[in-house]
Amino acid sequence: MSGTAQIGVTGLAVMGRNLARNFARNGFTVALHNRTASKTHALVDEFGEEGVFVPADSAEEFVAALERPRRLVIMVKAGDATDAVIQEFAPLLEEGDVIIDGGNAHFADTRRREKELRERGIHFVGVGISGGEEGALHGPSIMPGGSKESYESLGPLLERIAAKAPDDTPTVAHIGPDGAGHFVKMVHNGIEYADMQLIAEAYHLLRAVAGYSPEKIAETFRTWNTGRLDSYLIEITAEVLAHRDAATGKPFVDVVVDQAEQKGTGRWTVQIALDLGVPVSGIAEAVFARSLSGHAALRDVSQTLPGPTATALSEDEAARFADRVEQALYASKIVSYTQGFHQIQAGSEEYGWNIDLGSVAAIWRAGCIIRAAFLDRIRGAYDAQRDLPSLLADKQFAEEIGAAQDDWREVIATAVRQGVPTPGFAAALSYYDALRAERLPAALTQGQRDFFGAHTYRRTDREGSFHTLWGGDRSEVSG
Amino acid sequence: MSGTAQIGVTGLAVMGRNLARNFARNGFTVALHNRTASKTHALVDEFGEEGVFVPADSAEEFVAALERPRRLVIMVKAGDATDAVIQEFAPLLEEGDVIIDGGNAHFADTRRREKELRERGIHFVGVGISGGEEGALHGPSIMPGGSKESYESLGPLLERIAAKAPDDTPTVAHIGPDGAGHFVKMVHNGIEYADMQLIAEAYHLLRAVAGYSPEKIAETFRTWNTGRLDSYLIEITAEVLAHRDAATGKPFVDVVVDQAEQKGTGRWTVQIALDLGVPVSGIAEAVFARSLSGHAALRDVSQTLPGPTATALSEDEAARFADRVEQALYASKIVSYTQGFHQIQAGSEEYGWNIDLGSVAAIWRAGCIIRAAFLDRIRGAYDAQRDLPSLLADKQFAEEIGAAQDDWREVIATAVRQGVPTPGFAAALSYYDALRAERLPAALTQGQRDFFGAHTYRRTDREGSFHTLWGGDRSEVSG
Repeated sequence: MSGTAQIGVTGLAVMGRNLARNFARNGFTVALHNRTASKTHALVDEFGEEGVFVPADSAEEFVAALERPRRLVIMVKAGDATDAVIQEFAPLLEEGDVIIDGGNAHFADTRRREKELRERGIHFVGVGISGGEEGALHGPSIMPGGSKESYESLGPLLERIAAKAPDDTPTVAHIGPDGAGHFVKMVHNGIEYADMQLIAEAYHLLRAVAGYSPEKIAETFRTWNTGRLDSYLIEITAEVLAHRDAATGKPFVDVVVDQAEQKGTGRWTVQIALDLGVPVSGIAEAVFARSLSGHAALRDVSQTLPGPTATALSEDEAARFADRVEQALYASKIVSYTQGFHQIQAGSEEYGWNIDLGSVAAIWRAGCIIRAAFLDRIRGAYDAQRDLPSLLADKQFAEEIGAAQDDWREVIATAVRQGVPTPGFAAALSYYDALRAERLPAALTQGQRDFFGAHTYRRTDREGSFHTLWGGDRSEVSG
Repeated sequence: MSGTAQIGVTGLAVMGRNLARNFARNGFTVALHNRTASKTHALVDEFGEEGVFVPADSAEEFVAALERPRRLVIMVKAGDATDAVIQEFAPLLEEGDVIIDGGNAHFADTRRREKELRERGIHFVGVGISGGEEGALHGPSIMPGGSKESYESLGPLLERIAAKAPDDTPTVAHIGPDGAGHFVKMVHNGIEYADMQLIAEAYHLLRAVAGYSPEKIAETFRTWNTGRLDSYLIEITAEVLAHRDAATGKPFVDVVVDQAEQKGTGRWTVQIALDLGVPVSGIAEAVFARSLSGHAALRDVSQTLPGPTATALSEDEAARFADRVEQALYASKIVSYTQGFHQIQAGSEEYGWNIDLGSVAAIWRAGCIIRAAFLDRIRGAYDAQRDLPSLLADKQFAEEIGAAQDDWREVIATAVRQGVPTPGFAAALSYYDALRAERLPAALTQGQRDFFGAHTYRRTDREGSFHTLWGGDRSEVSG
């Protein structure tokens, strides 16, 4: 027995509801299910005219409404709820059916679920969906991970509901097996944290060093948004900074409590990067900056700590400084993306996903929070050389960061001298300079480790591992 | 039936062997056991004169050799091996006996094991032991976690084998229940990573900017070691830098491959800090610096990236710069310890351990890798105010960091301009300046989050959470 719905959505909170509507508005028949049936009917009552919905009051009814092979999207809170829903539906499904998890699951959970369901003959697709509520409704960026076969069945539907990149291609691609989609979505969010932190630092510098008002900074960001920094986040930064609070007449940004919150994917990105041995200092500093901002008691006691006062700049000097900040922001952004793509590359190697980095950049060009003109450039770099060892190995990016570096250095030096925190800018520059270094002091670290822990070291002039008898006659032995 | 041995050690690799000898040399009768019995007998053959050993060839014999309540130290590789040994011995033990895990276990595993064994009436003590092989033999710093009762039984033995602080107190204290000891040992190692990274940066600056030779830098470190930086790591840095490679006649540090390795506790520290919401940027940069150094292919392609060349300094300028580097190193070190102790405080709150931070500082004054005069100062700060919200809230540390800050800033600005990576110094300063800031740009971050994800924000002038209708008339509603 099989029904007529090409796709089903269970879990009709705002993301599920909007995704279901997006499918319906694109001509698909959509089965609907929710633990509380009233939500299902409310959706049909309110948006029934947008397309063909098949409301179902029970799990059995929902499954029966789907055409075979069934495609069933779970939109519930990531974690135990996802497992519970899978346990509820899996027994009702048949070989070849596809369960799609559209929540923000940890990729390790997705790997576990995919394996369990594969053994039962069911395809499990972990899908990263970016773009928030609006994206879900009007076109998100979609990162599905799972078997090739499942993508053949699911892909054509996702391609219809995804956002469209400037070249009119849909922002969805088969990322790779099992957890690949959720992994890439996680790194997307980590990069988003870094982007937001770098923008915050640029704003802070323009305010504290250049002495600009929020309105003037909004104007600066609007100008930047017409150039190489053209992106959704720069655009909305200008909107937020230009906004005045109606109640007080003050700039909106000045009435908001300066304690940033987070939901966890930035933290995951850094934790997984540590496991993979990938330096993602820009993302880490972004996560730390948010948690630091929330430690109100610590900040209170620290406000008496001594520091320099910012020196006033003339109008010309301020304008020149603002230009330098644009260079610093752009250079730091290149480093953030270099680190993020390095992490995807490392994850792909570790888990055998064979991820096409160019296609990841391509599907981030629209629909998601970090969408930017810049991503088309990254796509181009990886399309030109699929095994590019690093974004910094791309000739054009190397030239650009090289051209920006004097101003980048100047901005950080100024921030350091004037007491404005720039953890993201500084971490990015340190990464750049460490990669450039012919010799790193890591040789000293290895010497120390050999001294106190007999951990051995390698030599530059011959193979093998060695240990110096530090407590003895300091001769060298094989390790 | 019970034996005469006051303590038993199973697992006689180098750490276990040295720990067993340390117990014996301090007058305790020590039962010995190893999976391969030949190691047990080899120990007795070689070191039998050092004290009273009771070799045992089987688990049963080993347990029978111990006086009641039994105290049994497991010294095996952390992980599955620990669980296997526990499973082997637990059935042979009786209520009130104590199993001690002296490996580098993850504190979450220790919590799990403690709970399981507690339900069987057996005390489980997770002990962090620092000081390497030499420490295990001559006196380590010991961080035991477990029940109060178990410490009453075990403490007197540990106090005899521990190192002695300058005031002659043993470097061991009951840290707190279950995983507290292994947690504190983990953070100890994280701080060790940060200390080593800061020293590496100081060395790099003296070499690249001041133009000093390794020998000259060794001399500089030796001088520093007579002042407030007096510590084991500074001392051995001078030893490593002064050493010449016999084979080539070159400075030893120049023949060592500059790729630093790591064993995992630094990484754990950062991962757990992220879970606890504690910014430990100094430790994170230290871990990232090690992993970056190992990416040889990435570094190869990056050596063509443009950057400035260092300018030569006169002898006087170089000496002045070296003094500034001492200030920068000391200030950054204060921040590292501030972050590390913050993490211990947060862990203690999260898990209800009630850790005495002053006593943690006290037992790190000798025996362990980060031993330093500095730790006596930290002990003093927490002894004066047990609930000190942060090390930076201590008047004396605040004054010192305040006095160092001009040079600290100058050193980082110079490094930034001359292209020498100083991720640790820069992260520490950003942390300091962020804590000092009256307003952080986190307010902008919250505004962006509300714009794209309706995540809401709080206001500075009234309670509640709010959302601006960004897509509508931009009026404000309750969140």
